[in-house]
Amino acid sequence: MESFRKRYATLPRHSLTVCAVLVENPMNLGGLCRTAEAFRLERLVLQDLSLARNRKFRQVAVTTHQWQPLAESSLENLPTWLEQQRQQGYGVVALAVQPGAALLMQATLPQRMVLVLGRELTGIPKDILALCDQTLVIPQYGVVESLNVQTAAAIAIYEYIRQWGMNLTPLE
Amino acid sequence: MESFRKRYATLPRHSLTVCAVLVENPMNLGGLCRTAEAFRLERLVLQDLSLARNRKFRQVAVTTHQWQPLAESSLENLPTWLEQQRQQGYGVVALAVQPGAALLMQATLPQRMVLVLGRELTGIPKDILALCDQTLVIPQYGVVESLNVQTAAAIAIYEYIRQWGMNLTPLE
Repeated sequence: MESFRKRYATLPRHSLTVCAVLVENPMNLGGLCRTAEAFRLERLVLQDLSLARNRKFRQVAVTTHQWQPLAESSLENLPTWLEQQRQQGYGVVALAVQPGAALLMQATLPQRMVLVLGRELTGIPKDILALCDQTLVIPQYGVVESLNVQTAAAIAIYEYIRQWGMNLTPLE
Repeated sequence: MESFRKRYATLPRHSLTVCAVLVENPMNLGGLCRTAEAFRLERLVLQDLSLARNRKFRQVAVTTHQWQPLAESSLENLPTWLEQQRQQGYGVVALAVQPGAALLMQATLPQRMVLVLGRELTGIPKDILALCDQTLVIPQYGVVESLNVQTAAAIAIYEYIRQWGMNLTPLE
């Protein structure tokens, strides 16, 4: 197990960082951790790393928190953190139900990408949206106009993988 | 509200039926209902309609079960039901982590489609897989090799919408 863990740590990861600093529900965060691990994403960013010790988080994450690299940015620091990512060459993409947003499936995603997710009920505040390079929306056709944030994020992550996914040989 | 309900019932729906007869967890079923409604899919099929009265189902479905058409097929009847769908012109597509499965993003999906989902732990039994026209897999790169069934289904539904989604004018 220890040698597997060492070898696994050296494998390349997809250059997609999921910024879940605004996401509040530990079950949604646990679901995001499971999805991020399944696609071997480079980072999942929480507003507080202690959230990953929450019982509900772990229930939904199954054991993926042992493998998925996590990082932390406080809410107050989020604008600075986003600016740092941009300086490091990341494209900052917001996922939001927002007038004027481009359709996810019609967008060309940056290969180094930060995906910014919103709060469960209120989405992404305007001042944070203004700091993003582009805002994308998943087309919705229903009466109850909102996908769960974890579900919406999984769809955006899939679109990234569709555009940029590695051809990996499976692990033995 | 009543006139809205009547008008809404006449709107076109996407010709995608989600077959969740094998899915067991009411929270996953509730999540599927929410996603199916967001994309205005024609049917979500449960093994027992009473599952939609389950408290956990409703918690996750929010109010979408009031809008999403539901249907029922028992487990025993599933092979017959699938054959009926095929005779009615549906392509039957299984979503499974299965050797030899084609990648979801490389497949051409049928415009009239039944998406067959598997059990949470054991997936789709071999005899049901044999009745499907094609088996598709979402590429996964992680150690814990499984997406949640509701998350995986949402990704497949998005891929369908990417290929066949209507250009709809939003409801006022």
